[in-house]
Amino acid sequence: MDKIIKKAGRRPGQNKTKTSIVAAAEALFAKEGFDHTTIRAIATQAEVDPALVMHYFGSKQALFIAATAPSQQMPHKIAQELSRGNPETMGLRLATLFVGMLEAKPTSHIVVNALKAAIRIPGAAALLKTVLVRPILKAFRESALDHAELRATLAQSQLVGIVMTRYILKIEPLASLPPEELIAYIAPTLQRYLTDDLNNNKKEVL
Amino acid sequence: MDKIIKKAGRRPGQNKTKTSIVAAAEALFAKEGFDHTTIRAIATQAEVDPALVMHYFGSKQALFIAATAPSQQMPHKIAQELSRGNPETMGLRLATLFVGMLEAKPTSHIVVNALKAAIRIPGAAALLKTVLVRPILKAFRESALDHAELRATLAQSQLVGIVMTRYILKIEPLASLPPEELIAYIAPTLQRYLTDDLNNNKKEVL
Repeated sequence: MDKIIKKAGRRPGQNKTKTSIVAAAEALFAKEGFDHTTIRAIATQAEVDPALVMHYFGSKQALFIAATAPSQQMPHKIAQELSRGNPETMGLRLATLFVGMLEAKPTSHIVVNALKAAIRIPGAAALLKTVLVRPILKAFRESALDHAELRATLAQSQLVGIVMTRYILKIEPLASLPPEELIAYIAPTLQRYLTDDLNNNKKEVL
Repeated sequence: MDKIIKKAGRRPGQNKTKTSIVAAAEALFAKEGFDHTTIRAIATQAEVDPALVMHYFGSKQALFIAATAPSQQMPHKIAQELSRGNPETMGLRLATLFVGMLEAKPTSHIVVNALKAAIRIPGAAALLKTVLVRPILKAFRESALDHAELRATLAQSQLVGIVMTRYILKIEPLASLPPEELIAYIAPTLQRYLTDDLNNNKKEVL
């Protein structure tokens, strides 16, 4: 991984500095959210000059993408779940993966803050699409599913709704449900969005 | 309605003034959202003194509740849909009601702005719960459904997700789906949350 990022002719120690900056950014973005985190605060925490942060990453957006890398493993994991195993348990596996991610503090903070920022700042909505929406769409497209984009966005509508009602607005009793129970409720919804005959659904309407 | 609101011993013309203020508030909240709308701007549009707005309504929150009254008919309509007709089409009727409301510009703006404000301002989340979440919960409680609160919040998780992905983040292809098609996709989800045996679901997990 380091080898790929590393460019020729740079000083040794650069990767160590970059790693410190990314670690500081990860902690601050998770704690403060995208718009309350400054390059200066990240630099202070990483004990480097702010100019060096800009030199390495170019923008707060680019640094955010680097810092949220753990949550970006999500699309790969989704792609795996979509391509392997019994198609009939796809909904359950996706629900388990997603709720598991949201119950784990660091990834949960990143997703919650990214969604909050996406609503507050117009630019952040585009960023959320780049970081989370498009990669998930890509995972769906690479699967054998028909109507991949539609299925991906229908599944997202349920998943984003869970982030909002359970983790942001904290509406009870949903907010306090044991994760296993929540997974059991939403898995059939995801299953239907993932594998049901959508054309059939459409015909019923017409 | 006017008779109920009117208190004894007030000047005639008070109701007309109140109506103008509510109309101005409704227009401005819908256009600018909760946190970008000021008492002063509402007063200017209604052609009254800001002090009079405060005298009648006491706070921006109280005025918001009065101004969003049309969207507050929603819980009553939901209660109606939950109590009458074929239980097997409950999901379809709720989906039709909700998407219909979101496709109609004034109510849609109110819901979208209320949700945006709820995320930005901690106080607004409590307000959203008062204005929309609790009345819907009440409608569910008054229905014959078991596990009313859980069913209400599961349905809300899908509906809030639709507001977010289709109307706020505008994720395609969901954002451009014809309303009838969207209704057909989410109706079975709502139906399941409203009438499926939730205990059964729970047992499957344990």
